[in-house]
Amino acid sequence: MNTDKNILESEIDVLIIGAGPSGLMAAYWMARCGVNARIVDKRGTKVFTGQADGLRCRTLEIFDSMGFQHRVLQEGHVAVEANFWVPDGRGNLTRQGPHCSRKVNESPFRNMLLNQGRIERFLLDSIREHSDLQVERGVIAEAFEYDSAKASDPDAHPIAVTLRTLSDEEANPSSLRAEGGPHKVASGVARGSLLQDDWEELLSKSRAKETRTEIVRCKYVIGCDGAHSWTRKQVNIPLEGSSTDHLWGVIDVVPITNFPDIRRLGTVTHPTGTILIIPRERNMVRLYVPVQAVEANVPGEGRHDRSKITLEMIKHRVQVILAPFTFDYKICDWWAAYQIGQRIAPTFSKDNRVFLAGDAVHTHSPKVGLGMNMSMQDGYNIGWKVALVAKGVAQSLILNTYDPERHRLAEMLLDFDRHWSGLFTESEDEEKAQSMIKVVEFFEDFADGRKSFYGPSPLVWKKHDDSGPTASASEGCNLIPGERLPPVKLRMQADGNVKWTTAILKSDGRFRVVALTGDLRASTQRSRVEALAKRLSSGRGSEKSLFDRYTSLTGIHDCALDVLAIHSGPWTEVEFFDFPDVFHPFDTVHGWNYDKIWCDDACPWDRDCDGTGYERWEVDRKRGAIAVIRPDQYVGWVGELEDVEEMIDYLDGILVTRPATA
Amino acid sequence: MNTDKNILESEIDVLIIGAGPSGLMAAYWMARCGVNARIVDKRGTKVFTGQADGLRCRTLEIFDSMGFQHRVLQEGHVAVEANFWVPDGRGNLTRQGPHCSRKVNESPFRNMLLNQGRIERFLLDSIREHSDLQVERGVIAEAFEYDSAKASDPDAHPIAVTLRTLSDEEANPSSLRAEGGPHKVASGVARGSLLQDDWEELLSKSRAKETRTEIVRCKYVIGCDGAHSWTRKQVNIPLEGSSTDHLWGVIDVVPITNFPDIRRLGTVTHPTGTILIIPRERNMVRLYVPVQAVEANVPGEGRHDRSKITLEMIKHRVQVILAPFTFDYKICDWWAAYQIGQRIAPTFSKDNRVFLAGDAVHTHSPKVGLGMNMSMQDGYNIGWKVALVAKGVAQSLILNTYDPERHRLAEMLLDFDRHWSGLFTESEDEEKAQSMIKVVEFFEDFADGRKSFYGPSPLVWKKHDDSGPTASASEGCNLIPGERLPPVKLRMQADGNVKWTTAILKSDGRFRVVALTGDLRASTQRSRVEALAKRLSSGRGSEKSLFDRYTSLTGIHDCALDVLAIHSGPWTEVEFFDFPDVFHPFDTVHGWNYDKIWCDDACPWDRDCDGTGYERWEVDRKRGAIAVIRPDQYVGWVGELEDVEEMIDYLDGILVTRPATA
Repeated sequence: MNTDKNILESEIDVLIIGAGPSGLMAAYWMARCGVNARIVDKRGTKVFTGQADGLRCRTLEIFDSMGFQHRVLQEGHVAVEANFWVPDGRGNLTRQGPHCSRKVNESPFRNMLLNQGRIERFLLDSIREHSDLQVERGVIAEAFEYDSAKASDPDAHPIAVTLRTLSDEEANPSSLRAEGGPHKVASGVARGSLLQDDWEELLSKSRAKETRTEIVRCKYVIGCDGAHSWTRKQVNIPLEGSSTDHLWGVIDVVPITNFPDIRRLGTVTHPTGTILIIPRERNMVRLYVPVQAVEANVPGEGRHDRSKITLEMIKHRVQVILAPFTFDYKICDWWAAYQIGQRIAPTFSKDNRVFLAGDAVHTHSPKVGLGMNMSMQDGYNIGWKVALVAKGVAQSLILNTYDPERHRLAEMLLDFDRHWSGLFTESEDEEKAQSMIKVVEFFEDFADGRKSFYGPSPLVWKKHDDSGPTASASEGCNLIPGERLPPVKLRMQADGNVKWTTAILKSDGRFRVVALTGDLRASTQRSRVEALAKRLSSGRGSEKSLFDRYTSLTGIHDCALDVLAIHSGPWTEVEFFDFPDVFHPFDTVHGWNYDKIWCDDACPWDRDCDGTGYERWEVDRKRGAIAVIRPDQYVGWVGELEDVEEMIDYLDGILVTRPATA
Repeated sequence: MNTDKNILESEIDVLIIGAGPSGLMAAYWMARCGVNARIVDKRGTKVFTGQADGLRCRTLEIFDSMGFQHRVLQEGHVAVEANFWVPDGRGNLTRQGPHCSRKVNESPFRNMLLNQGRIERFLLDSIREHSDLQVERGVIAEAFEYDSAKASDPDAHPIAVTLRTLSDEEANPSSLRAEGGPHKVASGVARGSLLQDDWEELLSKSRAKETRTEIVRCKYVIGCDGAHSWTRKQVNIPLEGSSTDHLWGVIDVVPITNFPDIRRLGTVTHPTGTILIIPRERNMVRLYVPVQAVEANVPGEGRHDRSKITLEMIKHRVQVILAPFTFDYKICDWWAAYQIGQRIAPTFSKDNRVFLAGDAVHTHSPKVGLGMNMSMQDGYNIGWKVALVAKGVAQSLILNTYDPERHRLAEMLLDFDRHWSGLFTESEDEEKAQSMIKVVEFFEDFADGRKSFYGPSPLVWKKHDDSGPTASASEGCNLIPGERLPPVKLRMQADGNVKWTTAILKSDGRFRVVALTGDLRASTQRSRVEALAKRLSSGRGSEKSLFDRYTSLTGIHDCALDVLAIHSGPWTEVEFFDFPDVFHPFDTVHGWNYDKIWCDDACPWDRDCDGTGYERWEVDRKRGAIAVIRPDQYVGWVGELEDVEEMIDYLDGILVTRPATA
């Protein structure tokens, strides 16, 4: 216990250390669920240039559930076709492609490219929209005390973190310098390369503040503080793995070249290595460039020093590999040199009190284009779990699922990275383009949440506990616990407007009981749905309905559960009031609730809404099914309309029930 | 001349009076083109609730060219299907519909509903993105001097406007009260009904300022100051027309009703009148309600007084008309009472120095759902013309086109309004639903810019000057001078990304030479395109190329003209460098320009990009055509690839040529 009375002390539920993409994702949940939380970052400002830029369609689906996907679509660059250029044997390069992803229409979104700085902007705006939570910048965590004896006491604040406000010079060591590279960027951040909202933040960036130190006692800490994670070191979790000797350069430039595909995603292969071309917003192109080890040789030491790599060296390598095409630039937004390393922490959490996300627990080659996605999905995964537990809505045992759900994926990512990066440094090979296509296809299913995503746990109900991770509750059904709900565009019954399920399933902290009610025009089916409604409208204990059974996010939702009906009848032949009350609850101030009943029917004015949802889900259009969707849109449980008892078992294993009322 | 030395005096090019939708549209152009302009509004804040809410797809196309259509799509409500409820003769109501617009797929966008306050927000953000121009709020124009002797001197500032900063109380007479209604709104503006960005503006709304008076001398004044326009009165232009005796109420409520279509656009007919239902964002519904004249009778005077109409009266009328369905509400965001009047000014401008837009020159029933669109399109039309003339890019004669282009449409609007409003007050009629459908269909073509929009003028070239307003330059071609370019989704040749032409044709102040180059795989066609490029690359006088012939927006564009190529070959079989230099100009800093060459080919990952552009434009896929598109996306001129001389004649009649260089 600190005895210096001049040092401020406070208690909060959750402290997030690091405000990059993964930290901001976790913070989003704190904002959305009203958690007593803080988020600090040692840097004086957000990222503006450089860093990550790849967005998988699955990440865009998540953004859709958070409400800012449209900003990415407006600013970003689509990249779903790739070209592979190889030597033609006569001194020229020849194009193989374009190769378009086979799965490109399985998501409402496409893989896109947009600077990390813009993603942080959207996350910050979204957090501000839902709360007063603000990133405290120029604040460093410098001491950590953890009382493991209190780990199992839900009301305890077993962690004490000492925070210190940095001086302006400490927080912005080289003012506007971008991080990530060993050298100062060649071209600074100029107004021309920043959008208005980022520019304003830069102008008002944290000024010299009164330096102060404080102790924050917290229930949970989420460490999102990057590859050199301070948080990870406090809990003595190592990063395991190794660096290779391969040295790489990465540059963001406005290219001057007669290479015709400079604005298209692709690779160019040369006997000495392969470069990766990534077109970006505002005429910028990112190039990943293998730099010959000899250029960074430390004489007589048999090792390489990446600090010896210069921008000029990288440019020269591009010129060699792209020849006979020309290459130059006048504008370089950002550049860096790095060494490939695959490292992973053996565990991502400590006593379910400290959690680590993103680069803090897994690092790999940036060329995979998945790093920012994995990091954000880590933060997204732990965020809702910690938020719901901190608010007393979910049982703390769900925190056990963070490590297995994310660790396995991180291992798959590193495995993929080893294959993929190898293809860039291996010598020239006629089969290279084909190999790359195969590796990418293998990768896509796992990267986009379509194959064996999350294994069995209290959050992922497997009927037969048969260790087969893809075993579905309903035979042949494509609603698979542990995988995301395949996105479908539906019409709202009340108003006929259309939405993708990714937007309907808002990231608002609620579990969703999704009743695929089939076709209500058949009286037998209507009876089944009425029986389901009746069962939902009573609980299991003394509560009035299932929706009163669990505690809720006080002041935010009436209930920890939301309910949706998605019917398969024609939009014009089924009426809103054909549905039982449970699907359109009445409120004395707001009237009937109109946004819970949806229709899987084709819309005459929207081609994407084609009425094939039931087919994609492989659910019988007449009989329907019922599923519970987790707050992160992953299927948790699935069954027949009559399987409500089992569904309640599932929910009882996750949520906190209200005390029985007399 | 003012002699009081304490009164500030200044000179600017353009003064915009009124910062509603039409004024902000005009201001957008000033921001975009770098015009020395100011915009003032007597209100202390922007609009937050109530007022207009209907957005036609044509307006969304314009927003797309300005870059914020995505924000409307995210927040607004689509309304393209309408239901007409009529008495069934047995005391109940029966639905006729849904009736879906036949033309719904002719635009990338759908008609939408969103509060005017949000549209103002998007316009303000867009203005800020392009300039430092800010709306000066709480500022009233109170004296006007115009020296008509100077009207023809391009360098003169013939108008002097005295501006006075209002006190806080003057600018916000009832603080947060919404305008437009005769009474205080029932429910004030609460945080729950405002989005974060609007809320922040409200908090920081203009505080009490030092009251001051100043005289601003200007070249042009654009009056967008509403139905009681002060500007219009200064130039002695009357509003002509009349009010009917019909009294109407309009309410924005969160309804409590068992009427099943309350969230769908539609009408409900009753022997005493018809109500119009308009679903809106955030569960709000707007209702337009005819109020029986007797309720507002002024005893013994044989006239009606709309100030006698109460919210309770309007609610009661809804209850009567919706019966046997119930109707009530607890939340009312805004309400107003009004009298239908069709009024129009005989002219919209004075000496090409003062221009009037929006409600200042035409008023009609709000039920048309076109008022805000017409007003914004007025401001959009005059804005670019004044901006380009003020900057010396266009000849002042283009200002002559404002009145004929917009006046005729305003007359069509009023004509439509008389038909449409009549249908709401005529007694019950079995044919009513059918009549409504017919009137709406008649209306759609004109409202969305598809039929006979703008007549012949220096800006709209008609080959045979044959007075037929739809006569096209190329027989059978659907690129018709005076109408908008029919929107098509295209792929960028360089990167394969897709965009609607509405986004490609940015509202950035440039005329666009759009070469539909046909299929370059045929050598004869390639020769034609090379000949075209050669002709474009020389001018007519001493200039190096056509693009050097005209003065440009200094500091913003190199040239008053932009050039685009849209080819009809397969994306994968045509190469970027197959095109002549004029379509990918080279810059020593930015390299080749990649965004001028587009391809009308189907895209494997975007259903809307279906490669049917040439067919929609009715242009031969092999031979192509060439068109000049005005800065507002209307076709100005169209011809064969060989018709460049005629095209230069057209441009010479509009743009200012540079002084000949030695």
